Amino acid sequence: MADIAQEYLDLLERPVFAHLGTVRPDGSPQVNPMWFAWNGSALLFTHTSSRQKYRNITHDPRVSVCLTDPENPFRYLELRGTVTAVRPDPTGAFYVELAARYGQPTAPPPADAAERVILEVAIERARGR
Amino acid sequence: MADIAQEYLDLLERPVFAHLGTVRPDGSPQVNPMWFAWNGSALLFTHTSSRQKYRNITHDPRVSVCLTDPENPFRYLELRGTVTAVRPDPTGAFYVELAARYGQPTAPPPADAAERVILEVAIERARGR
Repeated sequence: MADIAQEYLDLLERPVFAHLGTVRPDGSPQVNPMWFAWNGSALLFTHTSSRQKYRNITHDPRVSVCLTDPENPFRYLELRGTVTAVRPDPTGAFYVELAARYGQPTAPPPADAAERVILEVAIERARGR
Repeated sequence: MADIAQEYLDLLERPVFAHLGTVRPDGSPQVNPMWFAWNGSALLFTHTSSRQKYRNITHDPRVSVCLTDPENPFRYLELRGTVTAVRPDPTGAFYVELAARYGQPTAPPPADAAERVILEVAIERARGR
């Protein structure tokens, strides 16, 4: 696992939006805002198995994640890593857990729960700015 | 040029931070927060000719840009495009102009002005969410 400088760990612990970069099958980049959780060694995202990002990471599991401090956009943590696991989340339980982390403590499971997956991203490089 | 839905034009006009996705020469993605300006048909970024992102776009000019509404991160505009021009900005004048757009009206030219360039990105696809 990458070393992450102590002074940037708050960006992993706070519910800031991640901007997730993936590469489309044609080799062009894609960036989307995402919820995430950090388990101390990997980033976890909720996603569905029917969208473009899922096709992207199936084709190439390398990702880039930018966590920008909403209170000071000049301060950010840039992470590079690889999707190492995709786990089914057919009840949407992890979606509900993330919704609570992002200020929606009573969110119901999503309508697309049956297609929900948890993406686990191992971090290989980290750079704070 | 791509059609951009009227209700998302504010994200191009307001000084929100852009998250710029590029592809590294090894094919992996990179995401960074950036200042930008919109001239009505292209996005303009200030950058330098000595950084990784510059090597990326020289290798592959396709980029993705995500403009997330800071007041509602569920609302965003995802743009895909191509770097169509790189113009020298050796006095840093465009950097100073962008600094003013982002709330720093008295910013001096940057120390690396000699290396500054303006990246012009033509938008091919736009999708608001």
